[in-house]
Amino acid sequence: MSRTMPEIDVQFKIRTTHKSGFLAGLLQRIGETGGVLGDIETQSLGKKQSVRNVTISVFDDAHRQKIEDVIRSYAGAELLESRDVVFERHIGGKIRSGRTKEIKNLTDLRYFYTPGVARVCKRIQAHPEEAVQFTNIGSSVAVISNGTRVLGLGDIGALASMPVMEGKAMIYDQFVGLSATPILINTTDQNEFINIVEKISLTFGGIHLEDIRVPDCFAIEDELQRRLNKPVMHDDQHGTGTVCLAAILSSLRITGKKDIKKLTIAQLGLGAAGFGIAKLLVEFGFTVIGADPNPEAGKRLTDIGGTVATLAEAVKAADIVVATTGKVGVITQAMIRKGQIILAISNPEPEISTDDALEAGAAFAADGSSVNNALAYPGLFKAALTTGARRIDATMKIAAAKAIAGLCDGQELLPSIFHPDVHKNVFEAVSKVSRK
Amino acid sequence: MSRTMPEIDVQFKIRTTHKSGFLAGLLQRIGETGGVLGDIETQSLGKKQSVRNVTISVFDDAHRQKIEDVIRSYAGAELLESRDVVFERHIGGKIRSGRTKEIKNLTDLRYFYTPGVARVCKRIQAHPEEAVQFTNIGSSVAVISNGTRVLGLGDIGALASMPVMEGKAMIYDQFVGLSATPILINTTDQNEFINIVEKISLTFGGIHLEDIRVPDCFAIEDELQRRLNKPVMHDDQHGTGTVCLAAILSSLRITGKKDIKKLTIAQLGLGAAGFGIAKLLVEFGFTVIGADPNPEAGKRLTDIGGTVATLAEAVKAADIVVATTGKVGVITQAMIRKGQIILAISNPEPEISTDDALEAGAAFAADGSSVNNALAYPGLFKAALTTGARRIDATMKIAAAKAIAGLCDGQELLPSIFHPDVHKNVFEAVSKVSRK
Repeated sequence: MSRTMPEIDVQFKIRTTHKSGFLAGLLQRIGETGGVLGDIETQSLGKKQSVRNVTISVFDDAHRQKIEDVIRSYAGAELLESRDVVFERHIGGKIRSGRTKEIKNLTDLRYFYTPGVARVCKRIQAHPEEAVQFTNIGSSVAVISNGTRVLGLGDIGALASMPVMEGKAMIYDQFVGLSATPILINTTDQNEFINIVEKISLTFGGIHLEDIRVPDCFAIEDELQRRLNKPVMHDDQHGTGTVCLAAILSSLRITGKKDIKKLTIAQLGLGAAGFGIAKLLVEFGFTVIGADPNPEAGKRLTDIGGTVATLAEAVKAADIVVATTGKVGVITQAMIRKGQIILAISNPEPEISTDDALEAGAAFAADGSSVNNALAYPGLFKAALTTGARRIDATMKIAAAKAIAGLCDGQELLPSIFHPDVHKNVFEAVSKVSRK
Repeated sequence: MSRTMPEIDVQFKIRTTHKSGFLAGLLQRIGETGGVLGDIETQSLGKKQSVRNVTISVFDDAHRQKIEDVIRSYAGAELLESRDVVFERHIGGKIRSGRTKEIKNLTDLRYFYTPGVARVCKRIQAHPEEAVQFTNIGSSVAVISNGTRVLGLGDIGALASMPVMEGKAMIYDQFVGLSATPILINTTDQNEFINIVEKISLTFGGIHLEDIRVPDCFAIEDELQRRLNKPVMHDDQHGTGTVCLAAILSSLRITGKKDIKKLTIAQLGLGAAGFGIAKLLVEFGFTVIGADPNPEAGKRLTDIGGTVATLAEAVKAADIVVATTGKVGVITQAMIRKGQIILAISNPEPEISTDDALEAGAAFAADGSSVNNALAYPGLFKAALTTGARRIDATMKIAAAKAIAGLCDGQELLPSIFHPDVHKNVFEAVSKVSRK
């Protein structure tokens, strides 16, 4: 428990004696359990008593219980309520589909619905390319998953992946104004998955694939992009690839390395993220050496122009090491050569800590805490849809990576997804290189 | 052209000499072409000139052209612009999917997205029934079509049906606050259609089937309701059936008929709508005699407890005649018996006009102009989802019909869909009889 931070935020509603230092004393007792203090919101301040919502990060249910006991047994304090903030925030979900125009009267109804709508239908039947103009299709993305590889959770099934898909959809809406619709497909058969997406794809302007297991995700994306005349992107591969390239460009700026296309990059781990990163790095012009215990993963890399080595060999040969293995401690200090750039981005724990990497001689080191696909995918899809691009190609991803890296200075590896310009800059840079 | 009304609304932006009677003179000339005047919106009123948007209903492009010529050649008038209102209103579509909550900062992102979201996913994995609580699923309906029978347009394909599906979704949102998502399925194979809907159905709380051809619509609905543990309803059958039952109840009130369950109803035409009506009438307790040239349609009716006859025999035997044949003039004055109720609801032209039916001795007659499925389906689905119903059964549809008819008085057959109580009343009435 001392190694990692508590991550479950619980809001405790507490009535206390209103006396200088009283709350601080209680919070100290809570802190001794390992709970980490977050926001304090005052609900009421009376002459004798006050009520406050105090958010504490806890490790688990037992820890929450322990804090409740601390509060209850603290003389002068009363626990009114405790609520798990994340579940509270999820009640009713996070997205919805609704009208953008109002039906105010019968005339409106006759325009938006029958009989007027029939002429719009006939027009689209005669000119299918105008569907993007007269329906929501032109600004809509389907966020599609079968839940076979969700976050760090693995195969939890389609239904249980919905909160993640809704999260992706929120981000599309909030940051670039696209209409994003989660679609859960309850199959683990890759051919059935492809067929279903193909058959419903008319409904949407672009297809964002999410959280699909390896190796299915590769064939699914390739085959769908072959069949469909609209952008298809597996975010775990290409969103991650784009943001990682941005991080590499930033690390090169920070370390002042020149002749960057002559550099060799070791990609440790060739799952969805690792392969997506490696592919974009090859396309960018880097020499890429990959390492993965799975020979099929290695074959996929050599097929696209990378080479394969053991993890130790790859690290040894590289100017830059990118690690997405999911294995804590797999990079040791002994492996690191002086002047290397080390990006150990597995979450929640990196392959080597930033401190250990720097101590071993790395010129720059970072973990995955600032790597967020949401820096890339909203602007990429917005640009693709706006320009009518039929695919999201390497040129577009590289433009996005440069736009993201272009917002950093000093020791900053990546901007925040709340940076006021990041999504607009990605959108504009990608739009410029997008081809119909 | 003299028989039907012009239905295409064009907005003409006209600059005219600002002089008493001038515009009236121009409008008279336009009226002589058969154009029907709609709204006039004054854009600017100067001392010498005024600019107005004048909406005129026209028959077709040639007619629009003719009116443009009239305006251009009218001394003192200038045509600035003309716009097809329906297409204007459809630009960008009519719906979108967006966030219901704001991601204001990194803390919010950690609650709504990773790492917080992972706990919600795990909870749903362990307790799938809680998905309706922690996602949008609990208040969402998919509006699904393959475009094989759209409005009066027939098989126009899935893509071209999108404006209708968006219209249905708008209505769900505006009238009962459900989140409705159009899904277009690009297949005419009924088994493939069923399979696709089954596999994506996890994403939604209910399945609204729309504009699917006969006979596929019957098997599709039955099989999906058998496979899925959530409400499935083909609106063309059951929305229409519900609204038609409401119209019949109103007509019985208007004519003062008693012992209503002993009455015989002729259902002329046993397509999706006709079968849906007949089925609900049988379930309500009426004796139903159906007529349809297709023997398979007749078999479907006898399977659910109706009897089959020729159209003339059915009309002769009936107290009430409901016609959904789509064939103008198929009911003649000679067929009608004194005291019958005649609901000839095919659109846009009825089987017999109201005037002709009354002249032939009908106690009450109406056409389909006030019959709108949107009176029923929003409240039906809202009630089903809110109460956790696994299907929308006859009891629920009958409750909806009674609630709709209950809002009418005098000679009124059906309320407007804008009636302030109609959707709430349907929702409440259906909720009362809904079973989990």
